[in-house]
Amino acid sequence: MHRYYGESIPFGSAEKAFKDATTLGYLNSAQALADYAEILIHVKEEFEAQKSPIIVIGLSYGGMLASWFRLKYPHIAVGALASSAPILFFEDITPQNAFALVVSNDFKGVSENCYDTIKRSWSIIDEIASAQHGLRLLSTRFKTCKDLKDSSELKKYLEAIYTIAAQSSRSLVQKICQIIDQAPTDDSILDKIMAVVVAIAGDAPCYVIPPESAPDQSDKAWEWQKCTEIVMPGGRGDETMFQRAPFNQNDYNSLCMLLFAIRPRTHWITTYYGGRDIKLTLKRFASNIIFSNGLRDPYSSGGVLEDISETILAVTAEQVLTSWFRLKYPHIALGALAPSAPVLYFEDITPQNAFDLVVFNDFKKVMMQPCYVNPPESAPDQSDNAWEWQNNLLSMISIDTMGNQSHLSRLKKPSKTQPHLDIYTFRVHGA
Amino acid sequence: MHRYYGESIPFGSAEKAFKDATTLGYLNSAQALADYAEILIHVKEEFEAQKSPIIVIGLSYGGMLASWFRLKYPHIAVGALASSAPILFFEDITPQNAFALVVSNDFKGVSENCYDTIKRSWSIIDEIASAQHGLRLLSTRFKTCKDLKDSSELKKYLEAIYTIAAQSSRSLVQKICQIIDQAPTDDSILDKIMAVVVAIAGDAPCYVIPPESAPDQSDKAWEWQKCTEIVMPGGRGDETMFQRAPFNQNDYNSLCMLLFAIRPRTHWITTYYGGRDIKLTLKRFASNIIFSNGLRDPYSSGGVLEDISETILAVTAEQVLTSWFRLKYPHIALGALAPSAPVLYFEDITPQNAFDLVVFNDFKKVMMQPCYVNPPESAPDQSDNAWEWQNNLLSMISIDTMGNQSHLSRLKKPSKTQPHLDIYTFRVHGA
Repeated sequence: MHRYYGESIPFGSAEKAFKDATTLGYLNSAQALADYAEILIHVKEEFEAQKSPIIVIGLSYGGMLASWFRLKYPHIAVGALASSAPILFFEDITPQNAFALVVSNDFKGVSENCYDTIKRSWSIIDEIASAQHGLRLLSTRFKTCKDLKDSSELKKYLEAIYTIAAQSSRSLVQKICQIIDQAPTDDSILDKIMAVVVAIAGDAPCYVIPPESAPDQSDKAWEWQKCTEIVMPGGRGDETMFQRAPFNQNDYNSLCMLLFAIRPRTHWITTYYGGRDIKLTLKRFASNIIFSNGLRDPYSSGGVLEDISETILAVTAEQVLTSWFRLKYPHIALGALAPSAPVLYFEDITPQNAFDLVVFNDFKKVMMQPCYVNPPESAPDQSDNAWEWQNNLLSMISIDTMGNQSHLSRLKKPSKTQPHLDIYTFRVHGA
Repeated sequence: MHRYYGESIPFGSAEKAFKDATTLGYLNSAQALADYAEILIHVKEEFEAQKSPIIVIGLSYGGMLASWFRLKYPHIAVGALASSAPILFFEDITPQNAFALVVSNDFKGVSENCYDTIKRSWSIIDEIASAQHGLRLLSTRFKTCKDLKDSSELKKYLEAIYTIAAQSSRSLVQKICQIIDQAPTDDSILDKIMAVVVAIAGDAPCYVIPPESAPDQSDKAWEWQKCTEIVMPGGRGDETMFQRAPFNQNDYNSLCMLLFAIRPRTHWITTYYGGRDIKLTLKRFASNIIFSNGLRDPYSSGGVLEDISETILAVTAEQVLTSWFRLKYPHIALGALAPSAPVLYFEDITPQNAFDLVVFNDFKKVMMQPCYVNPPESAPDQSDNAWEWQNNLLSMISIDTMGNQSHLSRLKKPSKTQPHLDIYTFRVHGA
């Protein structure tokens, strides 16, 4: 449902919508929230469900949108579940190194040797690349689908493997480190790294550079957002397993100038949504937001990890769930939300809406705390709240991320005589 | 400071800025709030006053902006004082008749005969106007500066006199009714009404239609806002002293289509800022807003008149202050705020900022309640709060209305050793 993603293309065609800043200007988070607001009010009218409380749910960028929606439209959503939402990844609120540090610590926690090997690999790659025929050598060694033009192409690919592994599950990190640690001692570091590539990417004809590398439309939309408002200054200092690469605003600006002839507005997110002194600001102002994070997920470093008030809660899990569901559907799995019910996540053979139902069940568990979510004015007294809440929960909005489809799905028309559950899903692209 | 008002003209010239919807599109309340946010953050950086709490203050449309700013930017403003802010004048939240009813009751409260005379005058005017040479007769009788083309010109002028009198002071209403009630009994109703015109408008060469009636630029800006987002469906039913004129959305739309080739978005304000079930929504979400209203002010009918929570307060005064200050500066007087200190409002010989200082003093009085406004995290314990608050209050933002100047005024640079007060004034046009 997020403009410019999936099927939500304004101006009649993608060509026009993505033409330049004149039309791309409408691609921004504030506009997306306004769209949700309009749609939700419309949907409620359509189905005569005006009294149905709405909870907004999202992961990653969708999680940021969920929390921001609750902050900006408290009259429309009674609560938000923001999973892996790095709302503090802006300006200098979070150290630039934080994301890379979590990934690094995930690997270090599994094996010091693994961590060291990866850390040492970068300079070896650079050394070979700078030698005569070095790039050709690397291309052969890593079986790249096209010849490498620069060592950064290989390094970016490897960085992505490590980062996605850390985001996905501990077992993937363990698998990578097992390959590195158990390799014959006379194998070179590059041999070990190549073995990791084969193990993770599978037995493919070639690696590193995909046969066709044109970015798809949603990628371009996300690039635009990163070049305008979603400026997350992530860098890498010496204390990570990655190659040192501090964030450089000037380089970033130049890239955006090149891509879109536009300068990023680095301070806009904190100006519009806040983020500085977030505890102080939200404690007495906001309510009914759950921030959930897996602490091994690098995005947690930009998340809210501590309770802010009695109704603004942080749910954290040291161990991100190792679930096939998350591996299969990393774009929708709220892995950290329900560590106690992982079995349900395996249901990838159930109907499309199974995940939503799972989230709903998880959410109900969190909701079991009486008084957590603002009941409608007509709700009975406190001791009955929890139960009433569950019976009256009519609508949930799931703002999920990276989906290729834009749709507003609805399970069934509300019955006036019976409690029921409606779920609307907004699929949007995410970080 | 509000775009398109006073000197804040974007696009280089008023001609371009007011050209059509392409450029006028940036004239809206959300954009104005975003501008305030950007400016405030800039100003705080400029003066190294990052830790200074900001309170936003405004009257009428400025009052709506003040409350909305606190709702949308709680991380920037710690509190808002919204005076005569009719934030509930949208859609069907407030009965269409409410505004006219307050004016009518102001007159009825002073004199039933006065109320009846005014109420009867409309049909008499229409009757004469519809007769042959009737409009010329009315033009002569009311000494209009140009010939009347329609009786509605005269009726609108009279309506404005009664409404402004009710908004301004009880003594003006009393004056009008005195003229009507004490006129010789054989005077016709129209004679009485003309006597009111002369008494209120003064001894002028002509009345009703001003010699030059082209609307000024700020009026056009406000028309645009009324035709896009600020759609207040005010109408008049039979139970007022005005002529029956129910609000008609189709007529309203047609007028806007004619003026700007645009359709009003009647539901946008409530979608973006809320307004329905306002107590329920704000009780657990928002904080630190004072809504002040004089109950004889017709705008109070669209205002928040009851406390919503311990930190969202309604200050109401049955008797709107009769102060020369308010008469002289109706665009900035917060008449209802400090009924206990009217003497200060007479200071129209003091420097320009006198009014701001008065408001500041008034505000301090309200602030005397410990814990009313969120102190900075470093504030001492509750018993010291009130005093600390006063000493540390560094910045106040006054969003005032109808000013012809746009300026950001600042009293003095913060001293680091001494408590001080800064006041920034944003002048904007208002309803």
